[in-house]
Amino acid sequence: MIYLDNAATTRLDDEVLAAMLPYLKNEYGNSQSQHALGRAAAEALVCARDEMAARLGCDSGELYFVSGGTEAGNSALKGVCLARGKGHILVSAIEHPSVIQSAKDMGKLGFEVEFIMPDSRGVILPESVRRAIRDDTVFCAVMAANNETGVIQPVREIGEICKSRGVFYYADCVQAVCTQEIKADFCDGLGISAHKFYGPKGAGALYIKSGNGISPLISGGRQEKGLRGGTVNVAAVVGMAAAFKKICQNKAVYNQSVAQIRDYFVNRALTEIEGTHLNGGGEVLPTHANLSFDGCAGEILLVALDLNGVAVSTGSACSAGATEPSHVLTAMGLPVERVRSAVRFSFGRHNVIKEAEAAFEILKTAVNKIRGKCALPIGN
Amino acid sequence: MIYLDNAATTRLDDEVLAAMLPYLKNEYGNSQSQHALGRAAAEALVCARDEMAARLGCDSGELYFVSGGTEAGNSALKGVCLARGKGHILVSAIEHPSVIQSAKDMGKLGFEVEFIMPDSRGVILPESVRRAIRDDTVFCAVMAANNETGVIQPVREIGEICKSRGVFYYADCVQAVCTQEIKADFCDGLGISAHKFYGPKGAGALYIKSGNGISPLISGGRQEKGLRGGTVNVAAVVGMAAAFKKICQNKAVYNQSVAQIRDYFVNRALTEIEGTHLNGGGEVLPTHANLSFDGCAGEILLVALDLNGVAVSTGSACSAGATEPSHVLTAMGLPVERVRSAVRFSFGRHNVIKEAEAAFEILKTAVNKIRGKCALPIGN
Repeated sequence: MIYLDNAATTRLDDEVLAAMLPYLKNEYGNSQSQHALGRAAAEALVCARDEMAARLGCDSGELYFVSGGTEAGNSALKGVCLARGKGHILVSAIEHPSVIQSAKDMGKLGFEVEFIMPDSRGVILPESVRRAIRDDTVFCAVMAANNETGVIQPVREIGEICKSRGVFYYADCVQAVCTQEIKADFCDGLGISAHKFYGPKGAGALYIKSGNGISPLISGGRQEKGLRGGTVNVAAVVGMAAAFKKICQNKAVYNQSVAQIRDYFVNRALTEIEGTHLNGGGEVLPTHANLSFDGCAGEILLVALDLNGVAVSTGSACSAGATEPSHVLTAMGLPVERVRSAVRFSFGRHNVIKEAEAAFEILKTAVNKIRGKCALPIGN
Repeated sequence: MIYLDNAATTRLDDEVLAAMLPYLKNEYGNSQSQHALGRAAAEALVCARDEMAARLGCDSGELYFVSGGTEAGNSALKGVCLARGKGHILVSAIEHPSVIQSAKDMGKLGFEVEFIMPDSRGVILPESVRRAIRDDTVFCAVMAANNETGVIQPVREIGEICKSRGVFYYADCVQAVCTQEIKADFCDGLGISAHKFYGPKGAGALYIKSGNGISPLISGGRQEKGLRGGTVNVAAVVGMAAAFKKICQNKAVYNQSVAQIRDYFVNRALTEIEGTHLNGGGEVLPTHANLSFDGCAGEILLVALDLNGVAVSTGSACSAGATEPSHVLTAMGLPVERVRSAVRFSFGRHNVIKEAEAAFEILKTAVNKIRGKCALPIGN
């Protein structure tokens, strides 16, 4: 199999699994227990938190362990809004479904939700954020990079605008963190998910700048300073910290390699397959390529590629199975036929150039077959 | 180490870890992805869900995967209440902190929260529930067995009362499920947590009877039929199902063995250590023993036992570190000195009789030492 769906999830790194295994075997204590086995678990969490906080440039006390990126987004948005009580919420129209849906949930509780549209490249302009902020705006969410297109957002400028207006700025860094330098200083809250950077599923981290009141989403015991109840998944957190350390230490090398493979693939597709379009512009993550192929329904192409051993996605994995066209590409103003023929190729550290070569040949054949045989009435 | 803190967490079963490992290695797909690797993950979830639902006596469509027992309790209580909009919530005074705190969270949103007191044995009487239900009662939570005392609750009778009054009945089965036959027919919702029955941390299951509207706690994609967003922790869910199968298949044997070890320990403590009291009465889980020792602060005794290699808890792990006395024992009306001198010994499948013998000798020495040397002003 040629796995080009690294934006959906990544293969767990063998070294990371090795770091987790002691906590899946002998070190099974509950980190809340006061005895030696519990303290060993608690100490593992302290190390993991310190390690990650140092790399994110925040205090350990500002970093909370959660079950993943979706919980991070829900916790930040609902937690801040419920602590404030009422107000206006700004959410970019290209956010992950977890953030968009969280905002809608708050809308049902009386908050006013407003979506900020991107430009045709898929970029949320700082000026759009500036114009949308009102005196009663309490929360703004613009992700660091989009999961479908990989388009990098001007988060630093957006953060400054939010700061100047006293608006809590949440940056979903789930897609960006694997390849970009993420430091917490540009925002009030950010979320990441371990399984997007070769760590395990079931662990994420949420940064909340100190001084911000937040209502816990999952209430319970004293875990995570009362912000997140429930026995901490120690093995997964240890794995997340190990994975985070590894990608941070090797970012430059990984990025150069993956960008080279991605660029090779995209260039060949654009030049050798007629009617191929690259969706999204400006600065893009080195891992992502969102391509549309005239006359090919994305879902049909996905199946054709899968049958030939190439794994890709249409849209995000979180909205897979959806019959609606991508909300991200639609918000960018792309014509419906281009939205419906879009496929996301997402490359990762384990991919090699030979896979890009093979995947390209399989893609070319599949596109030609679909165009020749099916003559799909795309967009009808 | 002699591990007598199985109520806090259990050691992951080696066979369960073996079942999980493929999903921590080659089978790393996102269960929402449409390609072969994603479908393999989705199929693993189908198998796990069918397996667990069959054993719980519910439909697969009524079982949701969550991150653990605390999330299950939050999801049920907040989910049902927010879907109803307003009303009266009944919660037993001996519930787990996650349920009590969730109820208080809803109290802040305008719901009226009422606590039901147990009798001196720690039993919530069905009659107390019957009397407390009002026409506007929307939710009732009485756990299947208490985490601190192991006292089993009359859930079937309580379920019938709630049903007759149209009240949603949630049974926290986190402690009970490891040793009791749990079938979903007696309630409208129940929650369990894998790491309490030799499964991994990071996985739990929530049963919600079909027909009950529920607002998702963690919103996002289409995972778990829209009730729980976020990439499913496939390995942990596979592990949970494997662990659940194993304890269900071996319940009678495990229970007999663990009860024998627990009873041996408790009998010796009650007969050979003067001033020892068993907290909780009626029917008790075969795994739990909550004992108070006159003149010994529970926290001091915990440390003394830990220093000699015996791991126990005071109260629940989720409220460990708390300076307040146990809310469970307090609600039972025990005198403050007995509450402060309480220690929970919780036995598990991996314990052997020799450990109970050794732990008893260590306990006896520790109690005598503390009584002789410290002469603690308990309760002052």
